[in-house]
Amino acid sequence: MFSLTVRDHVMIAHSFRGAIFGPAQGLHGATYLVDAEFRRRSLDADGLVVDIGKAGEALKAVLAPINYRNLDELADFEGRNTTTEFLARWIWQRLAEAIAAGTLGEAARDLEALKVTLGESHVAWAAYEADLPG
Amino acid sequence: MFSLTVRDHVMIAHSFRGAIFGPAQGLHGATYLVDAEFRRRSLDADGLVVDIGKAGEALKAVLAPINYRNLDELADFEGRNTTTEFLARWIWQRLAEAIAAGTLGEAARDLEALKVTLGESHVAWAAYEADLPG
Amino acid sequence: MFSLTVRDHVMIAHSFRGAIFGPAQGLHGATYLVDAEFRRRSLDADGLVVDIGKAGEALKAVLAPINYRNLDELADFEGRNTTTEFLARWIWQRLAEAIAAGTLGEAARDLEALKVTLGESHVAWAAYEADLPG
Amino acid sequence: MFSLTVRDHVMIAHSFRGAIFGPAQGLHGATYLVDAEFRRRSLDADGLVVDIGKAGEALKAVLAPINYRNLDELADFEGRNTTTEFLARWIWQRLAEAIAAGTLGEAARDLEALKVTLGESHVAWAAYEADLPG
Amino acid sequence: MFSLTVRDHVMIAHSFRGAIFGPAQGLHGATYLVDAEFRRRSLDADGLVVDIGKAGEALKAVLAPINYRNLDELADFEGRNTTTEFLARWIWQRLAEAIAAGTLGEAARDLEALKVTLGESHVAWAAYEADLPG
Amino acid sequence: MFSLTVRDHVMIAHSFRGAIFGPAQGLHGATYLVDAEFRRRSLDADGLVVDIGKAGEALKAVLAPINYRNLDELADFEGRNTTTEFLARWIWQRLAEAIAAGTLGEAARDLEALKVTLGESHVAWAAYEADLPG
Repeated sequence: MFSLTVRDHVMIAHSFRGAIFGPAQGLHGATYLVDAEFRRRSLDADGLVVDIGKAGEALKAVLAPINYRNLDELADFEGRNTTTEFLARWIWQRLAEAIAAGTLGEAARDLEALKVTLGESHVAWAAYEADLPG
Repeated sequence: MFSLTVRDHVMIAHSFRGAIFGPAQGLHGATYLVDAEFRRRSLDADGLVVDIGKAGEALKAVLAPINYRNLDELADFEGRNTTTEFLARWIWQRLAEAIAAGTLGEAARDLEALKVTLGESHVAWAAYEADLPG
Repeated sequence: MFSLTVRDHVMIAHSFRGAIFGPAQGLHGATYLVDAEFRRRSLDADGLVVDIGKAGEALKAVLAPINYRNLDELADFEGRNTTTEFLARWIWQRLAEAIAAGTLGEAARDLEALKVTLGESHVAWAAYEADLPG
Repeated sequence: MFSLTVRDHVMIAHSFRGAIFGPAQGLHGATYLVDAEFRRRSLDADGLVVDIGKAGEALKAVLAPINYRNLDELADFEGRNTTTEFLARWIWQRLAEAIAAGTLGEAARDLEALKVTLGESHVAWAAYEADLPG
Repeated sequence: MFSLTVRDHVMIAHSFRGAIFGPAQGLHGATYLVDAEFRRRSLDADGLVVDIGKAGEALKAVLAPINYRNLDELADFEGRNTTTEFLARWIWQRLAEAIAAGTLGEAARDLEALKVTLGESHVAWAAYEADLPG
Repeated sequence: MFSLTVRDHVMIAHSFRGAIFGPAQGLHGATYLVDAEFRRRSLDADGLVVDIGKAGEALKAVLAPINYRNLDELADFEGRNTTTEFLARWIWQRLAEAIAAGTLGEAARDLEALKVTLGESHVAWAAYEADLPG
């Protein structure tokens, strides 16, 4: 299995609901390092997993609507705790849609799996990974 | 699959038996960066893989008996080479017991797999991973 | 010159005023990696720059009032842009007060300089450094 | 599953063919951080995944023929785009041959899988992983 | 003293002349992580060392003419060994010119010093630092 | 001012004397990442701060007598607490001797300053820096 990973980041505000979150129930924020790992069994005709330029642009485009935002105010997240692991899946879903839409190039439709990792600090990170449909 | 990882560290002394270890047969030591990765297929009711606070405390509690110690003097390791990979499994086992005992919370009993990685330097690290029982 | 550095982190929300900040004028947030570097010309009687345990606790105590907070709501920061460089100095000042108060131990009163670095992402960080009074 | 990883690096020049590569069609270069991860289900008689000294030497020996070279001039890569993902597999194949030849020790013949990751910058990396034959 | 640092990277090919360079006399390449650290004694009216957006754009603009290039073919470097330390100063000079030209904003003319660090691998890096004129 | 830094590491055991050290009074150990930063005002005739190969070998040679050792048993450290900051200066002194002896090449005699940083974990490090004699 081959993989290619690109890194970007976002800076967001949010709060959590539930006693388990303790002080994180208050409005606070995070810088998330976001790693998108694309996987496929064989390389495309150019010797690539995916065009690294298109991959980076697609990740940036997926992150744009949440970058420099208070997630508590976004309709997509209404009634949800935007935990690191929850956001990893949300970004995964947006990237999967972009792949299906051909945004990462025709060859990228052959990608087999995707993993999104969000680093919230130097001592904690979370991820979501799954096979891509089709 | 979702995952959440927390990082801590320990500083230990030990020695190895066997010509293959060369100069590491003498008493020396290591700082181990310890990453505990918890995995589950779906998030719990709070949108979490595991309570990050409880996860961090459980890891610290597991590491406490070996932190600032000479592993050659601990009964648990008698007659064993406490290699990085061996210690990764030892920590895995202690964390698995803590999960089973409910130390990481009731929801953590649904965790499906665990990976423990020990970084011994900027150029070498080892890991043990396995599904959790039950 | 000797130095000792300890690292911790905080997760905060804030917003900026001024067209120069662009999208960062909206409420967003950051994880700041905080490195406190203590400097002195000669080691103390124990062979230390400063007790690393006390240094870590002092840094955590200084960060506690801003951790998991919206900085826009704190009286200390009223009317100020809590930029990364501004916060580096604010933390510097609180640590300098703790040193002067003897919180880091009597020997720490001989510390000569202090530098505080805040990492806001993997591609940007800011710092404030100055000699300590007395 | 146990794993052990060792890190080294190479500094190479190369160019790519194909419009998709944009400015990277010109002769340029890269420092690749190379991580070789060796995996096996149970530890050997010494409590090891593989002798870390032999693993490091084997990786260095595999990298020697490409280190400080222009890959465009090497027969092995004629007519190929030496992308990061392509090189990850090429190094994987050389290491697999070394394992099969006994270069990493007799016990290393029981290794079950191998992953090679190449970091091309702080924001992009690629990998190839597969089970080892035999 | 305050500082703000931004990071970017370039991927270049080059060769060195002189027996001291050993195998690096052949055409090879490098990924350089480039950190530009801007320093000033007091913050500007917005609470900044320098506008982080403009700083990042200026660094990218300075790096553009060497990114994805064979430095041996560039007139600027004719007859010179483009060592890591030499390139650190070359980038320093281009950034100093950009500051003097107002590219980083009017307030940036008050910057007092600049340091440029180039990481060539995980085990080696070089830097050039000096006061800015005016 | 130019600088060049090379990184290596050592794995040692030791214990401390003094109540201030708490649990670290027991025999334990550490992996130290060791960064040696060489500084000079102008580059040598080859465009270098120092020959990076010779610098790396000199650092490795300085570390060899303490690598894989119990520092409590070494005559050099008798009656001393081998704290991270103390060891930074000890390595500084050995490297300064090597520079004076011409081990890093004739041109290295013009080096003006040296800094040695020891990382003991991902959250703590210490350094010693001073001008070089002559």
